[in-house]
Amino acid sequence: MKQITGGVTAAKGYKAAATAAGIKYQDRTDMAMVYSEVPATVAGTFTTNVFKAAPVIWDRNIVKKTGKAQAVVVNSGIANACTGEEGDLYCQKTADAAAEALGISADAVLLGSTGVIGMQLPVDKMQAGAKKLATLLDDSIEAGSAAAQAIMTTDTHKKEIAYELTIGGKTVTIGGMAKGSGMIHPNMCTMLAYVTTDAAISHEMLQKALSQIVVDTFNMISVDGDTSTNDTLLVLANGMAGNTEIVAEGSDYDQFYEALNAICTFLAKEMAADGEGATKLVESIVEGADTKENARILAKSVVCSSLTKAAMYGCDANWGRELCALGYSGVQFDPMKVEMYFKSGDTTMLIFKDGAGVDYSEEEAAKLLANDHVQIISKMNMGTESATAWGCDLTYDYVKINADYRS
Amino acid sequence: MKQITGGVTAAKGYKAAATAAGIKYQDRTDMAMVYSEVPATVAGTFTTNVFKAAPVIWDRNIVKKTGKAQAVVVNSGIANACTGEEGDLYCQKTADAAAEALGISADAVLLGSTGVIGMQLPVDKMQAGAKKLATLLDDSIEAGSAAAQAIMTTDTHKKEIAYELTIGGKTVTIGGMAKGSGMIHPNMCTMLAYVTTDAAISHEMLQKALSQIVVDTFNMISVDGDTSTNDTLLVLANGMAGNTEIVAEGSDYDQFYEALNAICTFLAKEMAADGEGATKLVESIVEGADTKENARILAKSVVCSSLTKAAMYGCDANWGRELCALGYSGVQFDPMKVEMYFKSGDTTMLIFKDGAGVDYSEEEAAKLLANDHVQIISKMNMGTESATAWGCDLTYDYVKINADYRS
Repeated sequence: MKQITGGVTAAKGYKAAATAAGIKYQDRTDMAMVYSEVPATVAGTFTTNVFKAAPVIWDRNIVKKTGKAQAVVVNSGIANACTGEEGDLYCQKTADAAAEALGISADAVLLGSTGVIGMQLPVDKMQAGAKKLATLLDDSIEAGSAAAQAIMTTDTHKKEIAYELTIGGKTVTIGGMAKGSGMIHPNMCTMLAYVTTDAAISHEMLQKALSQIVVDTFNMISVDGDTSTNDTLLVLANGMAGNTEIVAEGSDYDQFYEALNAICTFLAKEMAADGEGATKLVESIVEGADTKENARILAKSVVCSSLTKAAMYGCDANWGRELCALGYSGVQFDPMKVEMYFKSGDTTMLIFKDGAGVDYSEEEAAKLLANDHVQIISKMNMGTESATAWGCDLTYDYVKINADYRS
Repeated sequence: MKQITGGVTAAKGYKAAATAAGIKYQDRTDMAMVYSEVPATVAGTFTTNVFKAAPVIWDRNIVKKTGKAQAVVVNSGIANACTGEEGDLYCQKTADAAAEALGISADAVLLGSTGVIGMQLPVDKMQAGAKKLATLLDDSIEAGSAAAQAIMTTDTHKKEIAYELTIGGKTVTIGGMAKGSGMIHPNMCTMLAYVTTDAAISHEMLQKALSQIVVDTFNMISVDGDTSTNDTLLVLANGMAGNTEIVAEGSDYDQFYEALNAICTFLAKEMAADGEGATKLVESIVEGADTKENARILAKSVVCSSLTKAAMYGCDANWGRELCALGYSGVQFDPMKVEMYFKSGDTTMLIFKDGAGVDYSEEEAAKLLANDHVQIISKMNMGTESATAWGCDLTYDYVKINADYRS
């Protein structure tokens, strides 16, 4: 398995396009399309929020009913969430417009929206945008990047990645794109992430892989603790690599799983590192927990702590806050057994052991915490399970961005 | 029942004092004592954090074993949490010093600490402070206020209140003090809150009342989602009012309960309103939930949402965030039945109904949200249960305070 250039257009048979449809932003692209030359098997995971955005309900129906799709149409600026029946109607109209332009059925068109909750989409602009996008489709790397750029909201850079691997003697490619960067605390999935592959794999095995992978990737990141109404992760597999279809577990499935896991891990970490206002990626690694689920809960509790996040911004080794977050996570453990380390690059510092802080250099700790990727390692010494969660620091800019998001 | 001036010294037989012991701060009082002339029945609730501060463990033992105490010694600046065996030893030494000076037993001395986690207390200064405090004890209102002032950390003002009521023909007084204002997301209790009363009430009934009341008062506030290692709420009842001891439910108990509930509600709201960096109190009222527990979860989810809190700071009626927080709370409900209102003073605005936003004036909403006390009312229309949670906005100052808390 090797990383290659590109994103959603890296795999065989995929095209993409972006356009400035004027949905809400006036000075940038805000609508994207991803298209597969042939119908693709599709798997997805979606937000668990009771208020599910209209496009989430639309996509979920397609994934459940047919498990096949050929196009994805995404807009940024307006989330089409909490928009009532009008919002559902606008999904239908957008899918109809895309389907007509592409010569496919509307129920082969997946939809995604991200932005302000509660506003209605300008449906005429959505329809015009969908038609325009159909004429701009291109299989170049650049077209995939343009799509990754168009779906951003407060993100500071696009997020895409691709891998190439061999399955049953055939070259298989898998690539993806995603966007953050606020209202990020995925529960079953993340804001918007799209993965395309030319692998041949059954709907059941694709959904199985995705549902397992999401637990340790997108579900382990948090920017602000707010689980969005629009979280959507979709994987399209069009089979154009020509490998024997993966219909059961085995080495082919394992290889595909590894690549999909690498894609999802990368995109999830990127989303955490580019959290609204963030200056650094904070990685919480828990080792030696008694169960896997407890390891996940402990790791996530640390990256979700507002006080930890503010201290990380200030490069303050105020380790009591990280311990405090372990302590209120709901997981039971022996506080006397816990060891905590701060790590960045090749530097590791022991901070806490035997129920009390150890003698360490505050100056060196502050220097370590000033890096843009900081690891907090908690050894629980209660068992053998581990987990990793990713978050970011809490900064003035997070407040600034979210105090006047709509203006 | 009527509100009167004062706090912990309002009830008969209580004295208090404050001193600048130089624990960590150099320019302010940082140690307080509350003393009852006669042994008082004591009830308490404490943090559920696995890392319990040494004074929490100390107090819990006293409440469980004897249910009696005569003095409380509290310091600010250092939390004596995550301090190992040394921290436990310093509790013993502080209690010993206070006990000797007061001529009582060390197991009648309750302790409280708040401040930085992980630092060791300067035990000589604690001992000297405890001895000094014993000589300064005074039953004046001012002495109670001085104690409320000394226990503050990042609080901007002291929090105290007192009520007077009649039980069985006798005048009973109940007063309390508390401090916030960061690491506030109490689970079974809050940072530090102390209530004194001259009522005669058994340990069982006092603990029963307190344990019920915390669920809808201190456990319903959140400043930053971080449940402290030091949360302690103690009530001392010395019986000096001369009422027939309350040993069972009935009208005497109900009256006492009402007063204790009013004290705890006031102190909890004060703590939320004075959250670190806060500019306003945000009150989330949920009505028509199917169960009481679900009403509490829904109400609290709204005040805990970082995005809601940032929008409140910006006076932005970005109501999708409040709905989103209801939606990810874990409680199931019908999103089409929800109605949401913003309220402040006499102005109430309907914002959301029938699954979509209603036509309201953004200008009027922004004006409403600019007040220092804002209510978000969510009518679930799923049943008849209601609950209220209190929080505050998320501001630049919260980040500033917590990015360099230790410096």
